[in-house]
Amino acid sequence: MERITIIGLGLIGGSLGLALKAANLREIEIVGFDKDSSVISKAQKKGAIDRGERSLERAVRDTALVLLATPVLSMRRLLSEIAPYLREGAIVTDTGSTKAVIHQWASEFLPEDVSFIGGHPMAGKETAGIDAAEATLFKGKAYCVSPAVGASEGAVKAVLGIITTIGARPVFMDPEEHDSYVAAISHLPIILATSLFRTARSSLAWPELANLASSGFRDTTRLASSEPELSHDICITNRENVIHWIDRFIADLSQLRDLIRGKEDEELYKTFAKTQMDRDAFLAGQEVGRDMRQAIELPSTGESLLSILVGERWVRRAFEVAESLEKRAEERERERRLRREDW
Amino acid sequence: MERITIIGLGLIGGSLGLALKAANLREIEIVGFDKDSSVISKAQKKGAIDRGERSLERAVRDTALVLLATPVLSMRRLLSEIAPYLREGAIVTDTGSTKAVIHQWASEFLPEDVSFIGGHPMAGKETAGIDAAEATLFKGKAYCVSPAVGASEGAVKAVLGIITTIGARPVFMDPEEHDSYVAAISHLPIILATSLFRTARSSLAWPELANLASSGFRDTTRLASSEPELSHDICITNRENVIHWIDRFIADLSQLRDLIRGKEDEELYKTFAKTQMDRDAFLAGQEVGRDMRQAIELPSTGESLLSILVGERWVRRAFEVAESLEKRAEERERERRLRREDW
Repeated sequence: MERITIIGLGLIGGSLGLALKAANLREIEIVGFDKDSSVISKAQKKGAIDRGERSLERAVRDTALVLLATPVLSMRRLLSEIAPYLREGAIVTDTGSTKAVIHQWASEFLPEDVSFIGGHPMAGKETAGIDAAEATLFKGKAYCVSPAVGASEGAVKAVLGIITTIGARPVFMDPEEHDSYVAAISHLPIILATSLFRTARSSLAWPELANLASSGFRDTTRLASSEPELSHDICITNRENVIHWIDRFIADLSQLRDLIRGKEDEELYKTFAKTQMDRDAFLAGQEVGRDMRQAIELPSTGESLLSILVGERWVRRAFEVAESLEKRAEERERERRLRREDW
Repeated sequence: MERITIIGLGLIGGSLGLALKAANLREIEIVGFDKDSSVISKAQKKGAIDRGERSLERAVRDTALVLLATPVLSMRRLLSEIAPYLREGAIVTDTGSTKAVIHQWASEFLPEDVSFIGGHPMAGKETAGIDAAEATLFKGKAYCVSPAVGASEGAVKAVLGIITTIGARPVFMDPEEHDSYVAAISHLPIILATSLFRTARSSLAWPELANLASSGFRDTTRLASSEPELSHDICITNRENVIHWIDRFIADLSQLRDLIRGKEDEELYKTFAKTQMDRDAFLAGQEVGRDMRQAIELPSTGESLLSILVGERWVRRAFEVAESLEKRAEERERERRLRREDW
């Protein structure tokens, strides 16, 4: 019997538990911890965990894999608190929305014999908490994976096993890449939705505006209902990238405004038409991509996940990726050293 | 037997037809016209109209009510083309996204004995055309009504009858009010969605970004798939208001960016938290509002719509609204004259 421990039983942690339990993993026990013990009870009642632990130490001691599913900023303390209790060869992974800062903390606090694999499921909804958790939240969604330089291949394999078990598709990238990409595709939309809602809400005509609002306004502002703690932590831990993308957005929007103001109506029409076409292609591509991905062979049953956790087998693809990330990190380190020597 | 003619059988016109037909109106015939005759056949097959007409003249001659459901910019020519064939006392209404310019054209082209009632259903989706039309598109949605100054009370009543028959809720406002409100709540979201999609799409990392995009990005950019002709016409016919709201949005977004850049983290948290609260209240209010509205008595059956079309009865509320709009128009005219005298 091996143990997976989920720390933080909100929407993401709870959904991870439900998705893993739904896979009927044999010989694997899902243990849950949350700072709020009423949430632990709820998670257990909902069937998201096999067993709750009210002590962080007991929750992580002798566990094969720890899954951190809390807001980004609380992960620093968590990593430092669990570090002393982790067993040799344990695997730690997370679900935070930014990766560079978490890798930094992991390398600062975790012992050498523990493997850290950064993770970020590209899934969510605007309702938070264990009540909103569902087993299918990750189905077909991208799940970013960024193994730390020293992580073992077995650890990479184990996290891949979890990702495929919950129905997501792993996407490897290094932490810096990840942070710049999600700033554009995930963090910027949150900020725009927030700003659009604020802009309308701050108008004197708000009661009239609210009365007219339809599905268009509701969908475009949906992310303004995100958990404030998540949105805040994202901006704090990914500041430079978020600012960069806000500025790029303002530049583009100003260009559109200038077309409208300058009565460049034909150009304006072309802009709308091209965007519609590009978005249709994007949506079609997402479908095609999903179909193709089903052909990729990855561990997906409970038994293979168990065998991964005890380190029996090997995934060549994961190994190659980890190796190439390691090489890139070495190259960067070399470049950094060269630059330092230049000074 | 009275006749209602729908001109333009796309998403909106087709859905109007389906919704009216679903109400089983007795003694009312729904006639449809579209510049594309294959669309007329489709509409008829789908049951959105009783009968198609391939000549605009025959479509509107001797009809009680004409419903224009085409992109805004094509309405000018349409109004001028149908004007000679309209019977005395006919009612013309439209579904255009902007109202001031349409009122201007209506007063320019329509004969004095024809009543024009501007209309704008706050409903839509990103898929266009008769194939996407559905009878329930307007259920519970706001439907703006702006009667022209000279419109008869019977005409106002008839349009109200149509609106309640299709399950929408009428909201009276004058054309200028309408245009400034929808610029914020409907046109601005279209432009932001377009700009967000363009910003991500123009990045060199677009393939990676697209691979990571999840429901958040998809929902926030949904309106970027709007029909380019609609978006274009909106910007062209509501230029000043659209520019005004883009500028207000950029000011708000810049403020958020400055909070992030200036490390005003507490203020940033409060901003996200307040917006989440406000949006929750807005969503809750939409529900409450919908319940209360059901208590308002308005004509809603096919028979009463027929009686309205032949002008038997009277709706005090509609009358009062029309009267107050007339008074406001008179006041404005007086103010305008006074200002002119000042010069």
